[in-house]
Amino acid sequence: MIAEIVSVGTEILMGNIVNTNATFLAEQCAALGISCFYQQVVGDNEDRLSEAFKTALGRSDIVIVSGGLGPTEDDLTKETAAKVCGKKLVTHEPSRKALIEYFNKRNIPFTDNNYKQADMPEDSIVIDNPNGTAPGVIIPYEDKRIILMPGPPGEMIPMFNDSIKPYLKKMSPVTIYSVTVKETGIGESCAEELIKDLIDTQTNPTIATYAKVGEVHLRVSAMAKNKKEAMKLISPVVKEIKKRFGKHVYTTDESVTLEEAIVKKLKKKEYTITFAESCTGGMLSSRLVNVPGVSDVYKSGYVTYANKAKRKILGVSKKTLKEYGAVSEECAYEMAFGAAKAADADVAIAITGIAGPDGGSDEKPVGTVYIGCCINGEATVSKYLFSGNRTKIRETTVATALRMIWSALA
Amino acid sequence: MIAEIVSVGTEILMGNIVNTNATFLAEQCAALGISCFYQQVVGDNEDRLSEAFKTALGRSDIVIVSGGLGPTEDDLTKETAAKVCGKKLVTHEPSRKALIEYFNKRNIPFTDNNYKQADMPEDSIVIDNPNGTAPGVIIPYEDKRIILMPGPPGEMIPMFNDSIKPYLKKMSPVTIYSVTVKETGIGESCAEELIKDLIDTQTNPTIATYAKVGEVHLRVSAMAKNKKEAMKLISPVVKEIKKRFGKHVYTTDESVTLEEAIVKKLKKKEYTITFAESCTGGMLSSRLVNVPGVSDVYKSGYVTYANKAKRKILGVSKKTLKEYGAVSEECAYEMAFGAAKAADADVAIAITGIAGPDGGSDEKPVGTVYIGCCINGEATVSKYLFSGNRTKIRETTVATALRMIWSALA
Repeated sequence: MIAEIVSVGTEILMGNIVNTNATFLAEQCAALGISCFYQQVVGDNEDRLSEAFKTALGRSDIVIVSGGLGPTEDDLTKETAAKVCGKKLVTHEPSRKALIEYFNKRNIPFTDNNYKQADMPEDSIVIDNPNGTAPGVIIPYEDKRIILMPGPPGEMIPMFNDSIKPYLKKMSPVTIYSVTVKETGIGESCAEELIKDLIDTQTNPTIATYAKVGEVHLRVSAMAKNKKEAMKLISPVVKEIKKRFGKHVYTTDESVTLEEAIVKKLKKKEYTITFAESCTGGMLSSRLVNVPGVSDVYKSGYVTYANKAKRKILGVSKKTLKEYGAVSEECAYEMAFGAAKAADADVAIAITGIAGPDGGSDEKPVGTVYIGCCINGEATVSKYLFSGNRTKIRETTVATALRMIWSALA
Repeated sequence: MIAEIVSVGTEILMGNIVNTNATFLAEQCAALGISCFYQQVVGDNEDRLSEAFKTALGRSDIVIVSGGLGPTEDDLTKETAAKVCGKKLVTHEPSRKALIEYFNKRNIPFTDNNYKQADMPEDSIVIDNPNGTAPGVIIPYEDKRIILMPGPPGEMIPMFNDSIKPYLKKMSPVTIYSVTVKETGIGESCAEELIKDLIDTQTNPTIATYAKVGEVHLRVSAMAKNKKEAMKLISPVVKEIKKRFGKHVYTTDESVTLEEAIVKKLKKKEYTITFAESCTGGMLSSRLVNVPGVSDVYKSGYVTYANKAKRKILGVSKKTLKEYGAVSEECAYEMAFGAAKAADADVAIAITGIAGPDGGSDEKPVGTVYIGCCINGEATVSKYLFSGNRTKIRETTVATALRMIWSALA
């Protein structure tokens, strides 16, 4: 089965946004064992959209489209796809009701142009969108399919995971089953070296590595008649990878994030955690709070951006701030201790650094970050020098802090 | 002049890497006033490459290609492009010499397959690559061009900036200039309704709307001989849009974010701000801290996830928590007051809500969020019901809080 990814949007053609949707969909197709030979990007223009869909239907079995499903006149994806497939648009009552409800719930004035989002090509499958107003739709065309999804990743990704993925799984004649080993603390090239012999001799299962910020995911995929047969091929390879990466492996469950693994581990140890953040300004805390049920282990956290806040909330001494400065090993140490005490927590992470673009010096250039980690009254501080812009430095700092927490707990 | 971007590489088709080359090239073309109606991604396969080039040459004047110029057998881009254009490959002596020098300089063993990187289509312009082994090449085809560049961004970007950009500039007769009006508080469909007459009559300049979480960006673009002429066309339209959207407009500078506009406004009013976050867990604080120089207005913030933290840090009364619960108007009110007092800040935003998936009830379903805003001792609380998953609810809450801050300050 061959799929083709079509991304619709002038913003992509103008270079305003990076086409991460195509990357996500390509990765998902690969994981499902669906070949992908082409990707296209096209703007909100009927003739060009029509040409793109016809070209794609001529050479691929499944055309996966994202973008252009909104309420405005620009949004032509659904109308054009329906025309290409020779389908009329008819009002889909459940979608119409859901739309009105969506607006009522939010107390947003409803404008008539929104109704077009409830018009669907006849004989198609409508896919619910709990995260936005435009539903998805699967349009059959001969023995092929055009699948339309909304463009915003926050709507497209959950829709793909919840509805499209199971649909594609059923369509695919062979089963590809994957297990993803996620590790933190070993970089991509190093990780590849560690399992080079396994990668070089791979046929079935295959191993693919995916570098993420602060982590590497290794996907072991096998093609087989059923899950049981696939797992027979996968299990020994996963076991070997886990052996080589040791405690750096935090999960072998595709859906589990590093912060979820951390929360689970904290619960098991009956530990509570707190954060004292300066340059990351709440980003680390926010990552952990993304985990449902975090309230069992996380009670309070502090953004101590000013020196006065570091003193008042965390009890960092005036002397430390004066002699070593706020961005120093000494300050990170006192911040970690102070946070643990203030929140009465078993684990405390303290972050202080220079995210730039200003504030750097020869001695402490932009990117200098100290991360303190206090567990049961024992604190350690690590110094880092990260590169990139302000956002990149802050994101790398948070990824590094999560890795440190995992290492400390594992 | 119409350009088309073709990215060559199995890694992109498999979702192993994000296609940032296409984003860079698209943005560059837009800035040069070159229209881009299509992007393609294709693997290292002769038939499919050939089809991609023929399709592109059929509808575009310039085909900009990156990837597949390396020394291995997989790399077929140059060979295929030459064939499509009916050109023979001949050894390009300067490239051959440069290649050998490159290897000698770095003390890397030279393998014979590298010579193929010095074979160039006849009648073409060879582009020096100081950052790698594969030169770029511009192949003429009738009155059109295929431009080939290496795939690694570290080689492609400098090659584009140093050689291809000046070449394209000479070819392009017009310049496109844009101004982006950014507003918050009016949704996309409503925003379009407000300027429907302007959009309907647009020719030059044109207006495009881009929906972001909690905001809408309206880009006004004009085609003209130079920037001054373009601005003459753009300015009256921008003025009219600003008039219609009033104080909802927070900037007309493409590079300014809503949080930057807020920090600027706070500085102007000499206000400080603080946050007390429950379900967003630091996400709002983190957004503001992304602004360089935020330290002038932001000193400290609080993540008060547990009831005890709300009491201890913010002084929320036991009675309020018992009678109305933590997710209530009363609690948001006391949190906002308490945060302003604790941080000695002029503005305080308090967030308390149920992000789910658990914790909802009939009375307070998942997605119920109260946002309190205290300015100079006067507090107001707004109630919202957001939908989506945990992440979506938290992101919408943060976007709404930023909109509230902007409205309160504007």
